[in-house]
Amino acid sequence: MISWSDVNIRIIIRILSFLVLIEGVFMWLALPFSFYYKSGDAFALFISGLITSGIGAIGLIILGKMRNDKMGKREAYIIVSLTWVIISLFGTLPFVIHGAIPSFTNAFFEVISGFTTTGASILPDIEAMPEGLLFWRSTTHWIGGMGIIVLTLAILPFLGIGGMQLFAAEVPGPTPDKLHPRITGTAKRLWGIYVLFTFVQTILLIFGGMSLFDALCHSFGTMATGGFSTQNASIANYSPYIQYVIIVFMFLAGVNFSLHYLMLHGKISKLIHNEEFRFYAFLTIIFAALITLILYLNTDISGEKAFRDSLFQVISIITTTGFVSSDYLLWPPIAWFLIFALMFSGGSAGSTGGGIKAIRHLMLFKASAAELKKLIHPRAVIMVRYNDHSVNKDYIFNILAFFLFYIMIFGFGSLVMASLGLDFETAIGATIASLGNIGPGIGGVGPVENYANIPTFGKWFLSFLMLLGRLELFTILVFLSPGFWKK
Amino acid sequence: MISWSDVNIRIIIRILSFLVLIEGVFMWLALPFSFYYKSGDAFALFISGLITSGIGAIGLIILGKMRNDKMGKREAYIIVSLTWVIISLFGTLPFVIHGAIPSFTNAFFEVISGFTTTGASILPDIEAMPEGLLFWRSTTHWIGGMGIIVLTLAILPFLGIGGMQLFAAEVPGPTPDKLHPRITGTAKRLWGIYVLFTFVQTILLIFGGMSLFDALCHSFGTMATGGFSTQNASIANYSPYIQYVIIVFMFLAGVNFSLHYLMLHGKISKLIHNEEFRFYAFLTIIFAALITLILYLNTDISGEKAFRDSLFQVISIITTTGFVSSDYLLWPPIAWFLIFALMFSGGSAGSTGGGIKAIRHLMLFKASAAELKKLIHPRAVIMVRYNDHSVNKDYIFNILAFFLFYIMIFGFGSLVMASLGLDFETAIGATIASLGNIGPGIGGVGPVENYANIPTFGKWFLSFLMLLGRLELFTILVFLSPGFWKK
Repeated sequence: MISWSDVNIRIIIRILSFLVLIEGVFMWLALPFSFYYKSGDAFALFISGLITSGIGAIGLIILGKMRNDKMGKREAYIIVSLTWVIISLFGTLPFVIHGAIPSFTNAFFEVISGFTTTGASILPDIEAMPEGLLFWRSTTHWIGGMGIIVLTLAILPFLGIGGMQLFAAEVPGPTPDKLHPRITGTAKRLWGIYVLFTFVQTILLIFGGMSLFDALCHSFGTMATGGFSTQNASIANYSPYIQYVIIVFMFLAGVNFSLHYLMLHGKISKLIHNEEFRFYAFLTIIFAALITLILYLNTDISGEKAFRDSLFQVISIITTTGFVSSDYLLWPPIAWFLIFALMFSGGSAGSTGGGIKAIRHLMLFKASAAELKKLIHPRAVIMVRYNDHSVNKDYIFNILAFFLFYIMIFGFGSLVMASLGLDFETAIGATIASLGNIGPGIGGVGPVENYANIPTFGKWFLSFLMLLGRLELFTILVFLSPGFWKK
Repeated sequence: MISWSDVNIRIIIRILSFLVLIEGVFMWLALPFSFYYKSGDAFALFISGLITSGIGAIGLIILGKMRNDKMGKREAYIIVSLTWVIISLFGTLPFVIHGAIPSFTNAFFEVISGFTTTGASILPDIEAMPEGLLFWRSTTHWIGGMGIIVLTLAILPFLGIGGMQLFAAEVPGPTPDKLHPRITGTAKRLWGIYVLFTFVQTILLIFGGMSLFDALCHSFGTMATGGFSTQNASIANYSPYIQYVIIVFMFLAGVNFSLHYLMLHGKISKLIHNEEFRFYAFLTIIFAALITLILYLNTDISGEKAFRDSLFQVISIITTTGFVSSDYLLWPPIAWFLIFALMFSGGSAGSTGGGIKAIRHLMLFKASAAELKKLIHPRAVIMVRYNDHSVNKDYIFNILAFFLFYIMIFGFGSLVMASLGLDFETAIGATIASLGNIGPGIGGVGPVENYANIPTFGKWFLSFLMLLGRLELFTILVFLSPGFWKK
């Protein structure tokens, strides 16, 4: 074991205190809606925010002024792993204090599902919840989508030293694009785009007849690829206009935000020539077209609705959002089977989406094809190329290891869920829907079901899978490795 | 496209002719049982053998005496790919001529299921089949288990030139051990052990009360890891003694035959220290122990029967044999879920078993663990080791590519089967049971079901998957690659 003197505990506690302080402030953002709707949850939200911010402030005061402390990889892994657990613990306060979710297990599940942008819910009747709490619930999505640490980097520039380590541990995707030489500059730009898109979507939803409250909640759920709705029927009962708006913004949320930044600066060709974007768009189009055809030929719904439902569910699942416009389990088996297959895809690296991600699939295809070519031409030198650069073997190895861990965790997770007595489809559905940060799965956790009936141990286990998935496995796996704690 | 002059067609046709000639002779081996049981299929078997051997002989006569022709990789891939299709086509003759399986699709499915040692059957009532045809059916297992080309290499030494290419294409496992400097010597030794074990098992089964006919058929099915039985209930109604004998020999059939050879020559330490063998034995013990516990705690069967049923099904599935002693789909869900997970394992390389194989899983674990270590110690040089040797990265890459293709084919195959209207469990069950050369799957193709009700296209598609699995993907994938046919 390492002794604690090897780790800079001061900086860990300081940063965690900062994040908790910020979280408390976010809770108060729900207060205006609580007052407006007289939903009776103002006290719970106020006191929760006070406790949360208070504990954060006390931590900061005790540890004194921020100095430019040394921060290594080890500290970064510890901070990021703990952050997500701690903000989820504090995040339960409004629900527990108000009593709307009396079970702590359920409250923790709901909140970590929010922060990890999973969107799996234990609420059987969402519309019965007070508006203030629902707004906080959607806010957890929005905070989690772009990442609370990235946010902190953006607004607290003095965190800049060592910030790259934190950034890499929270946004571990395989393409760490730098939008700015300084990490705080990058974080600022990413959050800027995120806020901009959320704002535009909110306006467009209000234009379609939504209240400001519903529009904000759904924009948070969309841009974070989260999936919490304020309606029991999710998006199914909204107008086609609103569904199309959400379709467009879900798709945008699944694109690498660095590409959005370049596009907003006029470099559209960067987007069009980006191989991951092309692959992501290709998958979306192919699956939506296939399912549209299947629905059109096998059911009696109109062509437009078949197209809209297919496109909505394909984008909702591929981006790991998890909004529902139609119960895909009622579709012909092959159609929902295609949806299930998409649960293993995920959006782009550098987007807010979870899952395995388009770039990893693309690199795996390329690596497999290269191996086949090598069998045909044993003496040829075959390189894997991406965006006109040849790709380092170590990079491919890392992606392969990620894929293997993902499949192993999926298999093992399904076994654990089945051992709790869940049937086959529910067990694998709940596992991939949690690990992939999707929300709805198949079987007993399908699009019109919820997670209320999962046994207690299962809820904690699925919460762990959500966290694993959100931090793209390695951060948590390293944190849990005995080797990490050795001197 | 290549012109045909680039390929040595003469040697391809010659070798195929040889193999077909040998196949016809094997058909006649069923005649004694046909006469003894007066089962009325002697004519069909005789005429089928005559046609098959006759066509083979004509091919040889037309092409004249065998010379030491040049044989490259290209010819080897073509020969091996075509061989398995052609012997399956001829293998249907007894069933079609007799009329016991009137549908050509069904007959082809049954025969390729035999040759690939899958053991998936379209026969709703096996006991109603004449004994001679059943014997031929089990013979296809036995020929396919060790490989008809390996057999030919063993008995026709003049094939030795270029034989290594053929051997590598038919036995493409990741450990091409050489038991003898000459490939024909290796082939002879492998078939020698195979014959010896089959003989010993037959004696032990007769000792347990089986007729010579049943004992031979079940020994063929065991040693080939095939799974065709002569009984509708498979192995369920046989005595515990017979079940234990089959357990032991299934386990042996799943071990690398090179290790058997070394063991028979007194080098037991080679077996005990072999990492793949240890991993294969470890998996078997862990899964059998877990399922025994689950059955013992959750059902009212005795401890011995829980142990026997668990061990039997675990070994039957891990080795991809597919014999059934108990309907695992009636077990508690977690127990058959574990069985389903085992469908992705497979026996050892160099055994007669199919599937992904123990060594590949072991190497994947090791590669993943190495990647995690690298994240913790970025500057350390981390090597993957196997049996005290450090492993080449290219070798790991090949295994990773195999795994990726396997998962892709499984996913795509399941989609194809679902598109035919099969339910979720049946679709994935039929796909993995065929691709893994197992036989029984889950859902509608579970252990007490059969493949009769799969739509015609599905039967052809599953036949293709069996072939892909038996030749471990790459031989067929290369054969189907456009690049392979380019100059």
